Amino acid sequence: MKALIVSGDLFEDTELLVPWYRLLEEDIVVDIASSKAGTITGKHGYTVKVKFALDEIDPSFYDLLILPGGKAPAKLRTSETLLSLVRHFFSQDKPVAAICHGPQILVSAGVLTGRKATCYKSVAEELRRVGADYRDEEVVVDGNLITARIPDDLPAFSREIMKKCRETV
Amino acid sequence: MKALIVSGDLFEDTELLVPWYRLLEEDIVVDIASSKAGTITGKHGYTVKVKFALDEIDPSFYDLLILPGGKAPAKLRTSETLLSLVRHFFSQDKPVAAICHGPQILVSAGVLTGRKATCYKSVAEELRRVGADYRDEEVVVDGNLITARIPDDLPAFSREIMKKCRETV
Repeated sequence: MKALIVSGDLFEDTELLVPWYRLLEEDIVVDIASSKAGTITGKHGYTVKVKFALDEIDPSFYDLLILPGGKAPAKLRTSETLLSLVRHFFSQDKPVAAICHGPQILVSAGVLTGRKATCYKSVAEELRRVGADYRDEEVVVDGNLITARIPDDLPAFSREIMKKCRETV
Repeated sequence: MKALIVSGDLFEDTELLVPWYRLLEEDIVVDIASSKAGTITGKHGYTVKVKFALDEIDPSFYDLLILPGGKAPAKLRTSETLLSLVRHFFSQDKPVAAICHGPQILVSAGVLTGRKATCYKSVAEELRRVGADYRDEEVVVDGNLITARIPDDLPAFSREIMKKCRETV
């Protein structure tokens, strides 16, 4: 099992750190990627090392994709490299977990039509517009897709990610 | 299983939030206590609701005590109410998990003599002075006592807390 987290500056700190630490707790290998390698800094000032630039990533190498929220997704969603990486995960039915503003990337990748999902409330209208079945629930699981709304949903988000990991192994 | 987290303003945000969310993921009831009820705010700006003032706590009600780090423990360690609560946990051999500056409270409670433990590096000398067997390791488990050094140790810290929870139930 190998997981990939994609984020950028001004990520919502807990939405990256909590799932990352959770996967490490299980000895799962986790790589963090962004538009370029180096470091990224969250809205609350936590700094995280980025191992790979997006164009260095071979998506077939990973079993799980995590998209944290914050202000990072609004920038990342314009990356054609990221959008095709996301489409790879969906085409292979591999787990994708997105929280808060993270689902904006899924909207841009065009993978949400007809899918049950949630997100930060200000993003809900975007989801509806592309034909997603938006739910105001702490976590929504639809096949390979796990979505949540806010940091307070992280316990439920982690629970469903771990459940999916156990199914995948 | 019922857990108690004791902290205060200027807590190290991840050291409170990560174990809290981890326990909630397992549907464990967690109460947060501080010198007074209301809210506390971490060094990185996260705000957490405090349900109970320390003097409202019946320690016999809880199976696990968590002491996050940051600047909160330096203030909390002067609370005789907290120190006797800590001694209750040790006298009953109930799990106590402290990280970073959290072990300062254990020093003041006088429960570390002869115990293997770790902490933030600037606190190590205090541990040695009270006769603790200080180890520079990501997590140290000695009977009921689980200690760790820094936020990056949180995956190992959570792993050992969850292991202890499973033994306790």
